[in-house]
Amino acid sequence: MAPPKVFVGSTNIAPWMGDAVRAAGADVIDDPAQAQAIVWSDPFDVDGLRAVLSAATDAGWVQLPWAGVEHYAAAGIFDDGRTWTCGKGVYAEPVAEHALALLLAGLRDFPERVAATRWGRQSGRSLYEGRVTVLGGGGITEALLTLLAPFRVTTTVVRRRPAPMPGASRVVGADATLDALADADAVVLALALTPATAGVIDRTALDRMTEHAWLVNVARGGHVVTDDLVTALKDGAIGGAGLDVTDPEPLPEGHPLWDVPNCIITPHTANTLEMARPILSARITENIRRFTSGEPLIGLVDPELGY
Amino acid sequence: MAPPKVFVGSTNIAPWMGDAVRAAGADVIDDPAQAQAIVWSDPFDVDGLRAVLSAATDAGWVQLPWAGVEHYAAAGIFDDGRTWTCGKGVYAEPVAEHALALLLAGLRDFPERVAATRWGRQSGRSLYEGRVTVLGGGGITEALLTLLAPFRVTTTVVRRRPAPMPGASRVVGADATLDALADADAVVLALALTPATAGVIDRTALDRMTEHAWLVNVARGGHVVTDDLVTALKDGAIGGAGLDVTDPEPLPEGHPLWDVPNCIITPHTANTLEMARPILSARITENIRRFTSGEPLIGLVDPELGY
Repeated sequence: MAPPKVFVGSTNIAPWMGDAVRAAGADVIDDPAQAQAIVWSDPFDVDGLRAVLSAATDAGWVQLPWAGVEHYAAAGIFDDGRTWTCGKGVYAEPVAEHALALLLAGLRDFPERVAATRWGRQSGRSLYEGRVTVLGGGGITEALLTLLAPFRVTTTVVRRRPAPMPGASRVVGADATLDALADADAVVLALALTPATAGVIDRTALDRMTEHAWLVNVARGGHVVTDDLVTALKDGAIGGAGLDVTDPEPLPEGHPLWDVPNCIITPHTANTLEMARPILSARITENIRRFTSGEPLIGLVDPELGY
Repeated sequence: MAPPKVFVGSTNIAPWMGDAVRAAGADVIDDPAQAQAIVWSDPFDVDGLRAVLSAATDAGWVQLPWAGVEHYAAAGIFDDGRTWTCGKGVYAEPVAEHALALLLAGLRDFPERVAATRWGRQSGRSLYEGRVTVLGGGGITEALLTLLAPFRVTTTVVRRRPAPMPGASRVVGADATLDALADADAVVLALALTPATAGVIDRTALDRMTEHAWLVNVARGGHVVTDDLVTALKDGAIGGAGLDVTDPEPLPEGHPLWDVPNCIITPHTANTLEMARPILSARITENIRRFTSGEPLIGLVDPELGY
């Protein structure tokens, strides 16, 4: 079969996307009218994509960059005439990595070490043979369990429907949340924000955690009752907190969370496009290969559901 | 076979060692004269061990706590009349974990985040699909390669004899060190300090590293020419450094390394007895089990060589 002709919008924004297409043996072309497929780099440029699509009448497949495609869904871009894919699943890995980074940095007292200007006392905890509880059973948790596996930790996953997950020592339902917090060396929040999960980490939950346990949030700020967390950190009720998300977010200057000890705050940087680039690049190459050989594509968007 | 009688010196210092012995079904006894084996908790108490040994005439096996037994070797404790084991291999895992913690914290700009008192810019790098070069091919590197595996990194191990290592993408000899530094996102030092490796990371080596690369040292401070590192960090020649060991060590107050940006210094805490406790505990239980069933013990010390 001849190599497919792929329009990449746009190679001057994201030349690496062109490289990813060519890596699978396809041709990158300049005229959307001749394209059999479109690889789109901009997560927000609805008008730009609409213009390309109107020219690209023969393109049967469109690859979008990010996991979330709500902007394009809201604009009514999706239709049944083409196959749509997005970066679904690609972004879970850097977020899981960030969770592990916050976890290790916390257990090993990096906040104290970074601030130090003199040789300090011996301290820190190892994750090996420890206990980790993860709230949420989606892609981030899957990736995190893979990263945690070599540490031989006992992992408890709390999810709405307690179906088993590969790599989890046990999976429990949401009604067992407080018990699952009680013996953990670290608690990672990687669940969706819903009315049922908002404020799940409140004073009651924090009181159930052990004094050395670290709380890591790579989900949404609203999962944690911030005032309760500030109190817990000030009182030493838990070991510390690593937060990539906060409530409010962005966390305003002067907020007490900036000043409590044993807290690492990252400004929602668990995943950036730059971080995900090599992984998305590999995904694009794989999808072009599948497109060429007629295999099912990865990361399909349902045009009806819009995700 | 009756459960073996084990003297643990001492259970009031390390009650968990008694637990580890009992977990294998052995009896912990108070009188060394009746002991068939001795589990010793103190890495330095030569006189204490000598006193116990003189009473423990029937004890055919002695388990020492740490990997390094140079104090006992220097004191002439070892003899051919008993089997000697130590914590050899147990400590590599927490050290590898610390290296990963420094690496992830560095790539994700945690020094800047910890110091911040306001929401910051997007930044950071992911380790996924990246390149890591490790100097040294011993137990720490083995453990580190296991931790790195889920990140699908390309790993280059530099060792004296470039024999393949499981999990390493490639292994090269020491003569290829500079080339191995050139394309790495992170360089980890996990090698022994010898006249040949002292100062291996000097200005020439630092100049070969990329501007974003982090240097992590969990080996010995003498591997790095400290003044050259300070210059490289000040000039932005490399991304940063995570150092668990320094030269001089302890790093004195007022030393310029405390003030350079993008540097995390931990006070030789990659491994503490507390961190290694669960792993050493599992090792003791396993060795007691093996002793009971007559299987070869793990972590044998050669009385002649003294390690």
